[in-house]
Amino acid sequence: MELYFSPLACSLATRIAFYEAGYDARYVQVDTKRKRVEDGSDFFEINPLGQVPVLRTDDGTLLFENTAVLPYVADRLPAAKLAPIGGLERARLQQWLGFVGTELHKAVFVTLLDPDASTEVKRYAREKLALRMDTLQAHLAEREWLLDSFSVADIYLAVVLSWARYCGVDLSPWPAARGLLERVSARPAAARGFAEEAELYRAEAERQSA
Amino acid sequence: MELYFSPLACSLATRIAFYEAGYDARYVQVDTKRKRVEDGSDFFEINPLGQVPVLRTDDGTLLFENTAVLPYVADRLPAAKLAPIGGLERARLQQWLGFVGTELHKAVFVTLLDPDASTEVKRYAREKLALRMDTLQAHLAEREWLLDSFSVADIYLAVVLSWARYCGVDLSPWPAARGLLERVSARPAAARGFAEEAELYRAEAERQSA
Repeated sequence: MELYFSPLACSLATRIAFYEAGYDARYVQVDTKRKRVEDGSDFFEINPLGQVPVLRTDDGTLLFENTAVLPYVADRLPAAKLAPIGGLERARLQQWLGFVGTELHKAVFVTLLDPDASTEVKRYAREKLALRMDTLQAHLAEREWLLDSFSVADIYLAVVLSWARYCGVDLSPWPAARGLLERVSARPAAARGFAEEAELYRAEAERQSA
Repeated sequence: MELYFSPLACSLATRIAFYEAGYDARYVQVDTKRKRVEDGSDFFEINPLGQVPVLRTDDGTLLFENTAVLPYVADRLPAAKLAPIGGLERARLQQWLGFVGTELHKAVFVTLLDPDASTEVKRYAREKLALRMDTLQAHLAEREWLLDSFSVADIYLAVVLSWARYCGVDLSPWPAARGLLERVSARPAAARGFAEEAELYRAEAERQSA
């Protein structure tokens, strides 16, 4: 499998899932500002929305959206036990992936991280944060992970929460959510993924300012 | 199964899925403005986010998020063939549910329909529409449905696109997307769902203005 990624974007969750499973994927870096793949080709040819992650499966199919890519990767690498296989626990996995994708990633953080969003637009997004984080806090207060065991939903949540520091969001009112971020970040697969992509992010920023 | 719904909200997609399958669900109406269930109880006790849909499964579990509820309902009612069961087609189902949920529902229409969003905030959301609708148009230009056959993803997309008329969005630049809305709406299950909830919506609006 091949992953189109941009450093420290949500595609990092899929990289961490690969590392958790010990899977040797190919990684193709995308400049999502200029919509260019690392070989100079037009990223809109790969994804008309211009967004990562895009997963190229072994038969060449392109798959989009974290809520689809992460469960697919988990199913392809079952020994890592990154997702429940079926039934209500699988529905719960999709519930939490959906919550992270719609309520945190899309409704709040994408806007807070958008340099083109005005102060008023960011305030509108920021006002949505507390109810969503309170919901997470209540759910995680007595739990180690979003589901009964560690899953790709925890990885996705940790990647999204890791953006808080870049947009001035203080997570300390929600210690259980911050605790999950810390627990995920302490796992060797996540620590490696965060560190490697931080380095790639710095290198890309240097190239862009050169 | 029991569905907490608000008239013409995204929960309508789950109602239509039940009608497609000929399943006799229980429906519990929620006033999502006042966050009250029809018996007067506090809806935040059911869903701390205050959002529909919420599905109560037969064992009493509460399930949230369209991208989880719709595939779960499809799996519980397999004779209606509303979702592929596994493999890459299942991942594609989650991809399109994810696209509708994050890119259209959450990134655009929720904000355009929010009476508390300012003109500037709505303009920011409105600017995101064209790229997303162009993507849909390109995908649907030569296809009848989002996947190889009709699925809950088409139902969810139709419900979200049906909101265009309420927020001044003209779908005519994207005839293939509008065509999907019309094909779904012409199915007896959807026609019944849209008509019944339009009536409930009018009745609720009258109560609220009384």
